Amino acid sequence: MGEKIGGEVELIRELARVFGPGPPEVVAGIGDDSAVLDLGQGECLLWTVDTLVEGVHFELSYMNWAQLGRKALAVNVSDIAAMGGEARYALFSLGWPPEKGPAGALAVGQGLAQAAWDYGVAVIGGDTVASPLVVTVTVTVLGRAPMAEIIRRSGAQVGDLIYVTGPLGAAAAGLALLQGQASLPQDVAEPLVRAHLDPQPRLAAGRLLARNHLATAMIDLSDGVAADLRHLCQAGGVGARLLAEKIPLAAGVKEAARVLGREALELALRGGEDYEILFTSPPRRRPSLLAAFAEAGLPPPLEVGEIIPGEEVLLVMPEGGHKELGAGFDHFRETWEATFPPHR
Amino acid sequence: MGEKIGGEVELIRELARVFGPGPPEVVAGIGDDSAVLDLGQGECLLWTVDTLVEGVHFELSYMNWAQLGRKALAVNVSDIAAMGGEARYALFSLGWPPEKGPAGALAVGQGLAQAAWDYGVAVIGGDTVASPLVVTVTVTVLGRAPMAEIIRRSGAQVGDLIYVTGPLGAAAAGLALLQGQASLPQDVAEPLVRAHLDPQPRLAAGRLLARNHLATAMIDLSDGVAADLRHLCQAGGVGARLLAEKIPLAAGVKEAARVLGREALELALRGGEDYEILFTSPPRRRPSLLAAFAEAGLPPPLEVGEIIPGEEVLLVMPEGGHKELGAGFDHFRETWEATFPPHR
Repeated sequence: MGEKIGGEVELIRELARVFGPGPPEVVAGIGDDSAVLDLGQGECLLWTVDTLVEGVHFELSYMNWAQLGRKALAVNVSDIAAMGGEARYALFSLGWPPEKGPAGALAVGQGLAQAAWDYGVAVIGGDTVASPLVVTVTVTVLGRAPMAEIIRRSGAQVGDLIYVTGPLGAAAAGLALLQGQASLPQDVAEPLVRAHLDPQPRLAAGRLLARNHLATAMIDLSDGVAADLRHLCQAGGVGARLLAEKIPLAAGVKEAARVLGREALELALRGGEDYEILFTSPPRRRPSLLAAFAEAGLPPPLEVGEIIPGEEVLLVMPEGGHKELGAGFDHFRETWEATFPPHR
Repeated sequence: MGEKIGGEVELIRELARVFGPGPPEVVAGIGDDSAVLDLGQGECLLWTVDTLVEGVHFELSYMNWAQLGRKALAVNVSDIAAMGGEARYALFSLGWPPEKGPAGALAVGQGLAQAAWDYGVAVIGGDTVASPLVVTVTVTVLGRAPMAEIIRRSGAQVGDLIYVTGPLGAAAAGLALLQGQASLPQDVAEPLVRAHLDPQPRLAAGRLLARNHLATAMIDLSDGVAADLRHLCQAGGVGARLLAEKIPLAAGVKEAARVLGREALELALRGGEDYEILFTSPPRRRPSLLAAFAEAGLPPPLEVGEIIPGEEVLLVMPEGGHKELGAGFDHFRETWEATFPPHR
C-alpha cells in the first residue's frame, strides 16, 4: 500500500472515514504501509496490496515480463518491511490483454516466483482476468511479526533523528535513462536502471529495527522523501527538518542529473521508487542503531535530519537558508507529471 | 479467485507449477476458491483476490459506482463462502482514471463499505492508483474457519449427489437485458437485472455445509455450472451426470430466454455469475442436509445430478439421450465471446 500518488492522500482519508476503524483486532488500517491484524498469541499479520499499471508504473518498451513480476512482488514486500515484518505469502491478480497470448503471462509469473524465492515468500494463489489494452499486476502480500515489534508511521517524536537505509535518487535517474531522456556510459547507467527495474525491499533492515525497537516510526520510500516524510509527519503530528547537504545521493545520480539537466537533490528527494526505508529514532539510540546494523552486516543507516515541533517539513540549504519542502505531487499522475517532468 | 475465464485454467495450472506447493501450512493454494493457511490452534485463514475490469466484467453504461464497489466485494466473499468460511477483512486497490475525479472513486468506496457491512467484513486498507482509460477494482478478502471444517473443490466421491444452493440463469439473463439485447416488463426484468448487478454470496449456506460436514466438495458458480462443475470434477478426478430436467431456472429466465431467442437451459448452465454454491454430498446425508437447511431458515438445496466415475461431465436430456457438457469457455474473453454471443 505504498505507491501513493499525491492528492490521493485526501481521497484515501475520506475512504478511511467511510470504512471506519474496524474491529479491535485491527491495530492499523488505512494510512499505514500495511494493515495490521492482531490475531492473538503475540503475533500479528501484516497485509498489503499494490497494483502496477502499464503506462503509469511501467512501460513495456523498457521492462520485460519477468522484471514486471519481480517488481510487483517487491513493492508489496517493501510495505511489509516498512512495518518491521517478515513477508510470507502472496496472491496475484494479473490483468492480461488476451491477444498477448499466454507466454508473457507465464513469464510475469516466473518473475514473481523468482522474487518470491528471494524474499522468502510463498505465492499461494491468484488469477488472471482479461484486461483491455493494458497489463495490470496486483499483488497482495501477508507478513508476520511479533505484535510488540510493529513499527507504525505515526510514532515519530520531536527530537528524533531521521534516517534512510541507503542512498537515494537512483531509481528516478534510471527511469529517465530508460525513457531515453539522456544517456550515460554503460557502467554508470546500469546500476541506475537496475534500481528502477529491480528495487530491493529492505526486509532485513526493517526486521532489525523492529526486533531491537530502534525506530519510532517507519515508511518505505515509494513516492520519494518529500512525499513520504510528509506522510510520516502527518501521521505523527510533527514536523521535520532535512539537511540538504546530508541527503545521500546514490552512485551515478550526480552524473545523471547533469546529462538530464536536473538537480541531483531533486532526483533524490522527489524521484520516488527508491524503496529504502525512512525511519526516525531517538538520538540516544544512535550508538545501538549503528552497532546493530554493523553486527548484522548491513550498510549503516544515513542520518538526514530531525523531527521538530509543528507540521512543516523544511529543507535546510547548505548556505544556511531553508525552504518548505512541498510534497511535489498532486492529484494523480497527470497533475503530478505537469509539476514534475521526469516521468512524462 | 473465482471468475476464471476458460483456457485460463491451463495458464493457472502452469503458474501453479512455477510457484510450487508452498510451505506445509499452505493447505490449499492455486486451484481452490480461496487459499487456505493453517495457522495452528485449529483455525485457518482463507484468502482470495479478484479483479473487476471495466469493459470485461462491467460497463459503466448500466452499473453505477456503488454497485461496482458492492459487487467487487461480493465476488470475493463468494470465494470465502465456497470454502465454508466466514469473510472477515478486506483490502482494495482501485485503478482510477484521474480525469474522472474523486467523487466516483469515493462512491465505489461507499458501495464497498455498504457490502462489507452486510457481510460482516471490515475494510482495513487499500490504495488507489492512476489507471489509463478503464476503471479496475481489485479486492482481496481474508476469512476464517475451523481447520476441520474447510471444504475443498477436490473431495467429490463417485455416487455423491450434486446440489446448487439456488436457481440459476438470472444473472446472465439480467446482463443481456442490461445490454439492451431485449426488453421485458419491469416486474420480470428487475430481479434478473438485480441478480447481475448485486449478487448475493452464499455465506450462510457455505458455513452451514462446512459446520455440519454435509458437503464433500464445493465451488462457487462464477463461470456457470458447465465450467465450474468441470473444475470441481477435474480437482476430484471424477465425472458427473447432470439431469437437464432438474436444472432449476430462476424466475423470469424462461421469459428472458424467449425474448432473447436463446435456450433457458443454456443461460442456466453457461451464463455464469449466479454466485450460488455448487456442492456434492453423499446420498445418505440427504435427510440431514435438508433438515439443516430447513432449520437454518435457508431455501433447500436443489439436486441437479450425481458424481460418476471417469472424467466426463454429461448432460442427460429429458428425452433420455445425453451429451458431453463442454465448458463453453475458451482462452480469455474474446474467444469466449466468439463462442457465446450474449456477452458481446
